Amino acid sequence: MGDVIGELVAGLPAGAVVTDAAVAASYAQDMAGFSAGGQPLAVVTARSTEDVQHVMRTATAHRVPVVPQGARTGLSGGANAVDGCLVLSLVKMDRILEIDPVERVAVVEPGVVNAVLSRAVGKHGLSYPPDPSSWEQCTIGGNIATGAGGLCCVKYGVTAEYVLGLDVVLADGRLLRTGRRTAKGVAGYDLTRLFVGSEGTLGVVVGAVLALRPAPPPHLVLAAEFPSAAAAGEAVCAIMAAGHVPSLLELMDGTTVRAVNAMARMGLPETTEALLLAAFDTPDPAADLAAVGALCTAAGATEVVPASDPAESELLLQARRLSLTALEKVSTAMLIDDVCVPRGRLGEMLDGVAAIAGTYGLTIGVCAHAGDGNTHPVVCFDRHDADETRRARESFDAIMALGLSLGGTITGEHGVGLLKRDWLAREAGPTGMELQRGIKAVFDPLGLLNPGKVL
Amino acid sequence: MGDVIGELVAGLPAGAVVTDAAVAASYAQDMAGFSAGGQPLAVVTARSTEDVQHVMRTATAHRVPVVPQGARTGLSGGANAVDGCLVLSLVKMDRILEIDPVERVAVVEPGVVNAVLSRAVGKHGLSYPPDPSSWEQCTIGGNIATGAGGLCCVKYGVTAEYVLGLDVVLADGRLLRTGRRTAKGVAGYDLTRLFVGSEGTLGVVVGAVLALRPAPPPHLVLAAEFPSAAAAGEAVCAIMAAGHVPSLLELMDGTTVRAVNAMARMGLPETTEALLLAAFDTPDPAADLAAVGALCTAAGATEVVPASDPAESELLLQARRLSLTALEKVSTAMLIDDVCVPRGRLGEMLDGVAAIAGTYGLTIGVCAHAGDGNTHPVVCFDRHDADETRRARESFDAIMALGLSLGGTITGEHGVGLLKRDWLAREAGPTGMELQRGIKAVFDPLGLLNPGKVL
Repeated sequence: MGDVIGELVAGLPAGAVVTDAAVAASYAQDMAGFSAGGQPLAVVTARSTEDVQHVMRTATAHRVPVVPQGARTGLSGGANAVDGCLVLSLVKMDRILEIDPVERVAVVEPGVVNAVLSRAVGKHGLSYPPDPSSWEQCTIGGNIATGAGGLCCVKYGVTAEYVLGLDVVLADGRLLRTGRRTAKGVAGYDLTRLFVGSEGTLGVVVGAVLALRPAPPPHLVLAAEFPSAAAAGEAVCAIMAAGHVPSLLELMDGTTVRAVNAMARMGLPETTEALLLAAFDTPDPAADLAAVGALCTAAGATEVVPASDPAESELLLQARRLSLTALEKVSTAMLIDDVCVPRGRLGEMLDGVAAIAGTYGLTIGVCAHAGDGNTHPVVCFDRHDADETRRARESFDAIMALGLSLGGTITGEHGVGLLKRDWLAREAGPTGMELQRGIKAVFDPLGLLNPGKVL
Repeated sequence: MGDVIGELVAGLPAGAVVTDAAVAASYAQDMAGFSAGGQPLAVVTARSTEDVQHVMRTATAHRVPVVPQGARTGLSGGANAVDGCLVLSLVKMDRILEIDPVERVAVVEPGVVNAVLSRAVGKHGLSYPPDPSSWEQCTIGGNIATGAGGLCCVKYGVTAEYVLGLDVVLADGRLLRTGRRTAKGVAGYDLTRLFVGSEGTLGVVVGAVLALRPAPPPHLVLAAEFPSAAAAGEAVCAIMAAGHVPSLLELMDGTTVRAVNAMARMGLPETTEALLLAAFDTPDPAADLAAVGALCTAAGATEVVPASDPAESELLLQARRLSLTALEKVSTAMLIDDVCVPRGRLGEMLDGVAAIAGTYGLTIGVCAHAGDGNTHPVVCFDRHDADETRRARESFDAIMALGLSLGGTITGEHGVGLLKRDWLAREAGPTGMELQRGIKAVFDPLGLLNPGKVL
């Protein structure tokens, strides 16, 4: 293995390769629970496409696995190291190369932080919509790898909709350019979208052409309190069936509301079993809020509070923003699930999660991108209690089984990673898995790229 | 080969298999020029997924190629038969199985005609945006196979954005279900989008879950006349850079305007070198038209005509709708190209096409989905004149070379088919082609599905 390190160092700028075991160990994992990372042989920080090519050529020559990493904010273990691997960190390839308001595209390196890009394009009157909760930390490369979503997807779609073309270093070090920088294009198989969501198992993204939109007007938010998850789910269905296009439609269950109350004393009624937040960035958001408020009341909301300006809107969103922090304080650890169901099944999903919490004797709070049916049940548990830890893991699986039984998917936006590999096989079926493995073999015949993830 | 037909007939409803040579020959090709179709062994009309599975199992057992067909309105030869193949027609699998206003999805069979679906979802207050010009004939299966676009893509995106999940019969007859019917989902590699645009070379689509949108308000249209293509291109850039989101932004060059005038006596000024049509379906379209009209004037428009109601809007769109019919009358044949360039290069593209028309001594009119940079240069030629026919073909290639030199793609929405195979290799490069061939081999190891198309 000494050769590998020597060859790596010889072809890279000074300081790019770190072999110190303690430092390397600090790159072992992302933010997923129940997904131990291995001990990397070295951490390589790339600063250019050529660096990445050198790493992949060397890794292929020596048959050493490579795990690409961004900010490691992922929640499925997709960026976890494996023993003896090279961690390939892309965070220093963080240049925004171009922002073009006529073409409405940005050309970026993979290490650009989502919020940095958002602010940069905002100066041109543009927006890059995908907004994962980790947007102040997560990188565009990681967003592409996982197919990340966020709060505004209900109106503006997910990362896949915004990736027009990619530069990708393949396992053997060759550089591939996919897609286009035009608004449309259908020349050949859609390799671009094959890479989106492939979690670094097919190639290393070193550049991306991203679609942008005109920045929307400021949104206005409405909060509605419901006495049951079913009633809130009914309101979501009524809002969508009526043809509304909210820019955000979020839901917190009673457990989450109480956790936020306990932490921040926000004065939310303890009797609230579901809090729905709807936002509109339309030309007349107040009119949309009034219409949606009426639908909420008809579905059984006990209180409906529309904001009258952006400042009030931000206050109403505070509860949502504090949800994870509040649930984190319930115990010593939490496990965040990511099951997406048809929005018509949201009420059943939330009631089902509450039943699972009862069965396993655990606190499970649910935040949901309700407009998309994308739920994030958060299992709170004491990591020092072996039995509770086992029950947490079992409840996590029970939640995925519930989601599939409701016609949903095991992952709406976090990806499969390590955490959900067995479940992917259940969702995709044997034929789907065989084809995916075939694709993996075409791109990475030696199995060196992020081994053990997804498939 | 007698066995093949006998086995096919044995497993299919009466009348599903037609071997009459003259009838079979009538299924030889789609609407592309310069792309001769072969003589099919038989035409099989499927009415169910089981029918398709039987066809593929039989074809695999006997190593007979299969060419899936929809309405054969394609413009790249992608649906053309090859000698000795089974044509597999999906037009009788034309049921709309479900329209769900809460989930905003439709579940359809592949033979549903685009306009039939559009009208059906319209009754629920919904829209299925992709609107190819052939929408009254073309099928959803064909739209998916080619990744079809249309006029409203500039605001609403192309077919790929609306396909959530697919049922696909593989080459060996196995049934694969991809994707989801939820709003979001990132479980595994994106097989759904790999099938979109694959032109029947990876599997036969037998069902699709399509995303729908709320029906937009009626649009208002503005027409603007320009003394040069460059000025019209400048107006397009100004409109997009200012953050406008037109629901349609179409351009006709002077050649097309004169052809329409000659046919329909629409009274368009003969001095018009480019006619730009912009539409808005926003809450206040008149205000948007006023703003866009001012930008057109600033860019050099000699006349700007905003419609004041939907009826006037339709009148303004007439010129665009008549374009192809008018250009068809110029000679005895036409060849429609589909080059998409960055919208900032539209003026150069149109001027370049005019220069190519001069070089080759041909009439070439250009219609363009200008907001997307997607141009359709229409090469008019006399099919009875061998030299003119040769020049037509050469000019078609020169147009693609021009498009690539401007940073564009050889096909924005029509697909590669037979017509642009050599050009795909030029656009995708050797590494991209190698990977695409690898994917093809995973899905269709015997090479039986629509052989000779795309790759």
